[in-house]
Amino acid sequence: MTQQPLYGGIEAGGTKFVCAIGSGPEHILDEVRFPTTTPDETIQRAVDFFAPHAAQLHCIGLGSFGPFDVNPASPTYGYITTTPKPGWTNTNILGMLQEKLSLPFVVDLDVVVAGMGEATWGASRSDRTSLYLTIGTGIGGGFIVDGQPHRGLVAVEMGHIRLPRDPSRDPFAGACPYHGDCFEGVAAGPAIQARFGQRGETLPDDHPYWRIEAEYIAYALVNYILTLAPERIIIGGGIMQREFMFPTVRRKTQELLNGYVQHDAILKHIDKYIVPPALGNRSGMLGAITLAKNANRP
Amino acid sequence: MTQQPLYGGIEAGGTKFVCAIGSGPEHILDEVRFPTTTPDETIQRAVDFFAPHAAQLHCIGLGSFGPFDVNPASPTYGYITTTPKPGWTNTNILGMLQEKLSLPFVVDLDVVVAGMGEATWGASRSDRTSLYLTIGTGIGGGFIVDGQPHRGLVAVEMGHIRLPRDPSRDPFAGACPYHGDCFEGVAAGPAIQARFGQRGETLPDDHPYWRIEAEYIAYALVNYILTLAPERIIIGGGIMQREFMFPTVRRKTQELLNGYVQHDAILKHIDKYIVPPALGNRSGMLGAITLAKNANRP
Repeated sequence: MTQQPLYGGIEAGGTKFVCAIGSGPEHILDEVRFPTTTPDETIQRAVDFFAPHAAQLHCIGLGSFGPFDVNPASPTYGYITTTPKPGWTNTNILGMLQEKLSLPFVVDLDVVVAGMGEATWGASRSDRTSLYLTIGTGIGGGFIVDGQPHRGLVAVEMGHIRLPRDPSRDPFAGACPYHGDCFEGVAAGPAIQARFGQRGETLPDDHPYWRIEAEYIAYALVNYILTLAPERIIIGGGIMQREFMFPTVRRKTQELLNGYVQHDAILKHIDKYIVPPALGNRSGMLGAITLAKNANRP
Repeated sequence: MTQQPLYGGIEAGGTKFVCAIGSGPEHILDEVRFPTTTPDETIQRAVDFFAPHAAQLHCIGLGSFGPFDVNPASPTYGYITTTPKPGWTNTNILGMLQEKLSLPFVVDLDVVVAGMGEATWGASRSDRTSLYLTIGTGIGGGFIVDGQPHRGLVAVEMGHIRLPRDPSRDPFAGACPYHGDCFEGVAAGPAIQARFGQRGETLPDDHPYWRIEAEYIAYALVNYILTLAPERIIIGGGIMQREFMFPTVRRKTQELLNGYVQHDAILKHIDKYIVPPALGNRSGMLGAITLAKNANRP
């Protein structure tokens, strides 16, 4: 009996880390979750998890929160760079892991890696092209084509696109330090907190702002659909977890497209077109394993 | 001496048709341009041009104005469908050409085909990814990756993305029959005509509207850059032909990105990043020849 090759996967999130060993959703040997504290402590916990298995692992995939330098030609490759997260600015997360584990690593942005997980085993496993978005503390997207993240001049940063705004309905000026009222600047968690002085999680379901939030999301989806034409859109992150959010966003997206994109996926089956992650809170970890497996392919 | 294989190229524009026979920019045997009149008359002129050479041609590439159905599985494949252009609604342009010429055809949207021409022989010939935009009577874009047009669920329709607007500066409600004030709805030729009761060509260079037009274009470029990250952006079409337009759009694009995309192409060399077509008015015709050559590859 041949033993299945084993890979490591790390989802390095701003709130928690998920580490696992295995080769796919049906074959996870061990998995651990712990909060993201200081770089030293958090990375040590990851090292402690993998170290006993290091001899069996071919490669470890790492999906990290950003801004994360994924350009191998850059002097800060593998660094978490200008994050506002206390203590993590300019953390060489890849270097720290590699030094202690002496294993090959493959890295990418958390949202891209989650998109790879969904494209391999999740909601978009039968699609050639898919878009994975996360809407939470920040907004980011990964566009997956033929199982690989799309990359051009740089990695895409589609959370920062500009959208129509009506200051008479939403006078908030925006919270993005670069662009003010870009998509992330008006619709991510910090923007909601800045508007109401309380975290989005504590706003009641019937708060009138949710309709505006859903509209910003729908405007962004319309732009992504017209520009990328993904075969499926998967949205993760805290803000979409309210029960009314998906139906409201779908309806508004259809309304804004107004029949222009003549495809049944949008006209008739939008409930299967704009969907939550099928892998739940394992998209990132499983995507990190995909990343490691792909890198190991001959 | 082996003879070079010969291909036909047709740029079927809403104003003029360009037909050519050859295999590349340095090897065009014959080329003809004529105005787009009725479908019967115009298509007959194309047929008359190619017919004497039909025996030598491997294939003809056709880039057509839209809406043009490029889905081979559709019953109206090869039709110009719901165009407002008088006489051309539901014209089976591919069928009419094929019936009279009995040759293999490959088809795509005019803007996509022009993008292929520039990617093969023009401004983006050394780039893996490029975006070709046309801003004129309509607005459309083609995203070329590894020499092929990107296509997902459908062909992309990025001229219809939604942008920020300030009705106090530009009270015009928009001219797009589907979306009102989308990019095309506020910035294409018909929108300018509807605002001022005169064609854009007749507005003087110092008309205050041009600044607003350049801003709409820059907002759109910012969204395309953040979503697609093309290695080059080529903009054709009448509106960009004013001398001040490229410098103004480049400056505004940098200003709106505000240093967020850390790449010298944008920070330092934007005059080489956002450029006019290098093939001038031959991008479409040469792209159609590329299309035919690609289809003929073993």
